[in-house]
Amino acid sequence: MPTVLIVGAGLVGSLNAVFFARRGWDVNIFEQRDDIRTMEHVPGRSINLALSCRGKEALEAVGLKDYITDRGVQMHARLIHSKDGKRFERQPYGQPGEHIVSINRRHLNEVMITEAEKYDNVEFLFNHKVCKVDLRKKVVVVVKDGEEKFFSGDVVLACDGAYSAVRRSLMAYPRFDFSQEYIEHGYVELNILPKNDGFAMEPNVFHLWPRGDFTLIALANTDCTFTVTLFAPFDLFEKELFDTEERRIQFFQDNFPDALSLMSKDHVNQVFNRVGNASALVSIKCKPFTFEDFVILMGDAAHAMVPFYGQGMNCGFEDCLILHEIINEENGDLVKAARTYSERRWNDAHTINDLAMYNYNELKHLVNTRGYKLRKKLDLCLNKYLGQRWTPLYSMVTFTRTPYHKVVENRKRQDQILKWTTYGIAGGILVGGTAFLVHKYFID
Amino acid sequence: MPTVLIVGAGLVGSLNAVFFARRGWDVNIFEQRDDIRTMEHVPGRSINLALSCRGKEALEAVGLKDYITDRGVQMHARLIHSKDGKRFERQPYGQPGEHIVSINRRHLNEVMITEAEKYDNVEFLFNHKVCKVDLRKKVVVVVKDGEEKFFSGDVVLACDGAYSAVRRSLMAYPRFDFSQEYIEHGYVELNILPKNDGFAMEPNVFHLWPRGDFTLIALANTDCTFTVTLFAPFDLFEKELFDTEERRIQFFQDNFPDALSLMSKDHVNQVFNRVGNASALVSIKCKPFTFEDFVILMGDAAHAMVPFYGQGMNCGFEDCLILHEIINEENGDLVKAARTYSERRWNDAHTINDLAMYNYNELKHLVNTRGYKLRKKLDLCLNKYLGQRWTPLYSMVTFTRTPYHKVVENRKRQDQILKWTTYGIAGGILVGGTAFLVHKYFID
Repeated sequence: MPTVLIVGAGLVGSLNAVFFARRGWDVNIFEQRDDIRTMEHVPGRSINLALSCRGKEALEAVGLKDYITDRGVQMHARLIHSKDGKRFERQPYGQPGEHIVSINRRHLNEVMITEAEKYDNVEFLFNHKVCKVDLRKKVVVVVKDGEEKFFSGDVVLACDGAYSAVRRSLMAYPRFDFSQEYIEHGYVELNILPKNDGFAMEPNVFHLWPRGDFTLIALANTDCTFTVTLFAPFDLFEKELFDTEERRIQFFQDNFPDALSLMSKDHVNQVFNRVGNASALVSIKCKPFTFEDFVILMGDAAHAMVPFYGQGMNCGFEDCLILHEIINEENGDLVKAARTYSERRWNDAHTINDLAMYNYNELKHLVNTRGYKLRKKLDLCLNKYLGQRWTPLYSMVTFTRTPYHKVVENRKRQDQILKWTTYGIAGGILVGGTAFLVHKYFID
Repeated sequence: MPTVLIVGAGLVGSLNAVFFARRGWDVNIFEQRDDIRTMEHVPGRSINLALSCRGKEALEAVGLKDYITDRGVQMHARLIHSKDGKRFERQPYGQPGEHIVSINRRHLNEVMITEAEKYDNVEFLFNHKVCKVDLRKKVVVVVKDGEEKFFSGDVVLACDGAYSAVRRSLMAYPRFDFSQEYIEHGYVELNILPKNDGFAMEPNVFHLWPRGDFTLIALANTDCTFTVTLFAPFDLFEKELFDTEERRIQFFQDNFPDALSLMSKDHVNQVFNRVGNASALVSIKCKPFTFEDFVILMGDAAHAMVPFYGQGMNCGFEDCLILHEIINEENGDLVKAARTYSERRWNDAHTINDLAMYNYNELKHLVNTRGYKLRKKLDLCLNKYLGQRWTPLYSMVTFTRTPYHKVVENRKRQDQILKWTTYGIAGGILVGGTAFLVHKYFID
């Protein structure tokens, strides 16, 4: 049986472990941190994730979907909060029943590590830091207790995240295209506690306070808390929010009065005093994803994206599923599969990266504009009557496994149809009106 | 006196050494290779460089301009070779007298190392490979004979080229934007030997054989040879040019018959058999250029570009000059200077990077189109009569020190003026014609 070396026991790494374990292949999985199941506090990325179709189907393929979704909170719509905190607008995500699921990152990761560990052919190596991959010698270089160790295998799956050490060691690989771009906005996470042992706000929606240049969101957790995230330009964090406690509370009072009323001012101040810096958001694109038929980049290591489409994890999970679909197509030929994976996946990854960046603007501004809302309603209405022949952009991304690049192609086709329909209607009115006038004044 | 640690004794590194030596600062310059003055064969980048205004002014500032330019070959125009090798078209670079200078890379580098060594406060450390910079400890980590050494100083100038190890060690620095993009084309260098002890072709021009998807160029050397470079897509190299000797010669015969007649077929075959692979061309952009007031990226480490505007070295040399101008402006305050340098320079670097990529297309196609040639002539004509009020794009880049981003602004203004002038003339003809007709038929 081939040996798979997986770098990183995060979400994508541990899902990969389960996939390959079920194939009966030998799996070594290296994680620089301790086992998160034994850690008190896990540093790093945001707490909440929105699980949607692509992620669910990948979990389904390893029999974990129901277990996971049962431990999340369904979200059926965006709920837009007005500036005075008194008016709300509901924007459904799709047709009745279509929803995404708010999941706790740590819980999900723990479940998957435990699942992978059930297989005899999987070995987790915690506190093993992978520094680089040597493509010539075909080994992974690992540092454990300050000592270098070398591991060899048939394939390396680099699932070591946006700051992937494996990817960094490949930067000088011939014709490796790469870009990392930070956006102007950073984020800080806050918390809304339960109220009378229940949710302090409606749980089954994605709460959104769009304020132009900055935005607050809140996602429910199963313990009746909400994770609240403030996205704002670093300038604003530095000048307004990390400056004095008074200005900070005033800022929340002015912009998110209803959210503030559900958090203690002490909590807000403690969070901002503690974090000291907002977390940055990076968008990473690269090509190819496969190197010398030996290393495959997956998840954030291949395509970290800004979080505004809720597709980072879903896309990473779909990577795992697609790799396995391709290995099946290629009858287990790993070399062929690695090449096909890279060719088939990079363009989709670039596309969802761009879409996420586009949604960055949408969340800030567009959700409040008339044209955007009209199109959203029109799309859902056409979808209701035409079904799959007219699936809105957001629904194609979130509720289907349509390859991301096809999603954008379909959307462009829809835009064309709407444009020509508009012209057609305008032309019809013009012709009809003219005919009417000619008839009235010249023939009558 | 402050201590400057320079990483890389290439063109930009050694020029920097001279600049800081003249300031009286202490300079340590680390070079992973041996002293190139003692090497038989220097691997790496292309042989020829085109020195123009920005590079010359930087050399002038350290008193090396005349010495260098006297050891180069002036080029006053592009000479376009037709496909049958019988017709030639001359496209002057600027006004009579304006020219660029073909320089040998190795010679230039040797001169500058020798110049820097004249100063007591400069120490060259050859065979010292810098692996990384530690921003927290403010040290440069160097490997010499397999052993790690640490050097500290007041500032690190990373002049270690497109594949900069210093830059790589900063990849995870907060909010460091970076991209590397390889183009579809690679290159291979050939050689035309002297004929009857003289140049085999006209020396004082830039020879160009544009053939759409691939291009041959030739630059004269002072020893009466020409360095010939073939740019072509990697596909073509792999299929046509590295395949059989017959097909390769046929390819040259079909596309560059006059160039082939000046090279022995054996030479062509030897070169292609020897190199085995075409060299890749990468475009690198990043931001910021300064980290923790300690590390400054300069030259290709900050902005490697494709070679089609002949600005790679010139931009790198101008980096050195600009840094020194800023240190003077800031009265020797290195911290302020480092910040100002980054803020002032990154946008210019991105701009020339884009212009070089644009010229990649120009060299392939546009030089042969009527519209391009007409605009080129019109620009030079307006320049002749309007002087500095109308400097063509190429001339602003090549014959002035106008900041690159201003060059593009000026060009956009020129485009606007030409557009409105065209509209004005068309409008004038319309109005005049109408007046004439009205007068002729209704009033007469």
